Amino acid sequence: MQKIFTPPLNNATSDAPIGVFDSGVGGISILQALVENFPEENFLYLGDTARLPYGTKSAETVRKYAGQSLKFLAKSQVKAFVIACNTASSAFLETTFEGRPVYNMIDCGVKELSDKSTGKKALLLATKTTVKSKAYESRLRMQSPEIELLSVPAPLFIPLVEEGLSDGPVVSETIKYTLKEIQPLLLAQAFDTCLLGCTHFPFLKKEISHSLGADLQVIDSSSQLIKMLQEDTQTGRLQLRSKDSKPSERKLTFALTDSSEHFVRFIQKLWPQAEIHWVEL
Amino acid sequence: MQKIFTPPLNNATSDAPIGVFDSGVGGISILQALVENFPEENFLYLGDTARLPYGTKSAETVRKYAGQSLKFLAKSQVKAFVIACNTASSAFLETTFEGRPVYNMIDCGVKELSDKSTGKKALLLATKTTVKSKAYESRLRMQSPEIELLSVPAPLFIPLVEEGLSDGPVVSETIKYTLKEIQPLLLAQAFDTCLLGCTHFPFLKKEISHSLGADLQVIDSSSQLIKMLQEDTQTGRLQLRSKDSKPSERKLTFALTDSSEHFVRFIQKLWPQAEIHWVEL
Repeated sequence: MQKIFTPPLNNATSDAPIGVFDSGVGGISILQALVENFPEENFLYLGDTARLPYGTKSAETVRKYAGQSLKFLAKSQVKAFVIACNTASSAFLETTFEGRPVYNMIDCGVKELSDKSTGKKALLLATKTTVKSKAYESRLRMQSPEIELLSVPAPLFIPLVEEGLSDGPVVSETIKYTLKEIQPLLLAQAFDTCLLGCTHFPFLKKEISHSLGADLQVIDSSSQLIKMLQEDTQTGRLQLRSKDSKPSERKLTFALTDSSEHFVRFIQKLWPQAEIHWVEL
Repeated sequence: MQKIFTPPLNNATSDAPIGVFDSGVGGISILQALVENFPEENFLYLGDTARLPYGTKSAETVRKYAGQSLKFLAKSQVKAFVIACNTASSAFLETTFEGRPVYNMIDCGVKELSDKSTGKKALLLATKTTVKSKAYESRLRMQSPEIELLSVPAPLFIPLVEEGLSDGPVVSETIKYTLKEIQPLLLAQAFDTCLLGCTHFPFLKKEISHSLGADLQVIDSSSQLIKMLQEDTQTGRLQLRSKDSKPSERKLTFALTDSSEHFVRFIQKLWPQAEIHWVEL
């Protein structure tokens, strides 16, 4: 995929945080990968919990919400933006915002599919809004037109993850219901790869893999996101903190639009040192 | 329950619509009852679909959203307000807004419980936010302190209804999961009544009744709402249209904050003559 290099126009220093946003819990799976792979970096995570979920709302509304989130992060002087939500990414595919790089889940997923697919059909599980946007199909046509994609909406997966469920009969029946219509294709082993096209879905990965069968590899976008950021530090598009910065001194800050106790507990369990604030967009 | 009579201060005539609001599909169960019982009346339904669901969000956020919805309906010159959402009702228990009567689901539910309970414990199924608000408990203490209530949050019921599911294995497993912790009490026949304290839940009534067992009566708020409105037409608190108005001339108008195709199809199936608009709150 061609990348346009845009020199940083903003005042954000290399010490500035990387901004990450999603509507709810899903983006945390992406933040975990970022925190692990960039141990010196500061992160500012915006969770638009007052308006979650995005995945059942119109592209127009999601684009409006995504724009407000990007503006909030830009004002907070982040040096780059990670849209850690496939639905928001599908409604905002631009690669820069206010002169700073934007990383979206669609491009990462397409790159991962191109690397992993072995020639059979690929299956995409995503939200209704992502499926309807056809963002994956249009990016695949540009990047890897040989990959044939079947997109299946899985709207009932998100509330399960938001409730903290990852296995058990409710999860397995919901997965079975979601895959019901493509069961004949699964039995015929039509797919080689399944892309989890929603940042909530990796929390259900074990059960989804089990339902799809052992021959089908289940992939997600996070490792490609890490690769893209690492590549951009080589070209200078993204400047990391000095190697002398101590991981123990890095800051993890959360800004939430609603005060969900459940979500706060989830964050505090993962990162007890995190700072949590409430904001209005 | 004591009612404060407030003379209509507004310019809304008796021909003005009754305003009804909810975040999504749930309020439609209430609108159906209203449309059936008041065949000459005009109705304006506001669906805040851009920010649904309310039931997992904080009381503060829900109160803000409810206030914006009431303001929109007031500007649209409705003659009365029906908060067709238990969560929004729990965050806004006032009985008037801008001089016009407000009907909320909590007071209707409490009245229904008082009428139907036979002395055993009552079970409330509701959203997390409604349960946390303790609005039912505090209103019951005023109205019928002898009724002992156990409130159980059922956050996974709403996405099922929003997806149009009302039976099948996903529904029955979700109900079983929700009732798991009170299973010993159900086996001991501790309850005589179950109040569906969310306007989404009547769409799952058959399956919920089946899971609770035949001895337990399952009730909801809609019939008490109708009674309250009928009583208020007697006292003059609410003025209905003239009896000469023809049901065929009444108007059903919908204002939605997001353009969910699924929801629009649902409305058009019920009321093909309905007018549908999009609004920003």
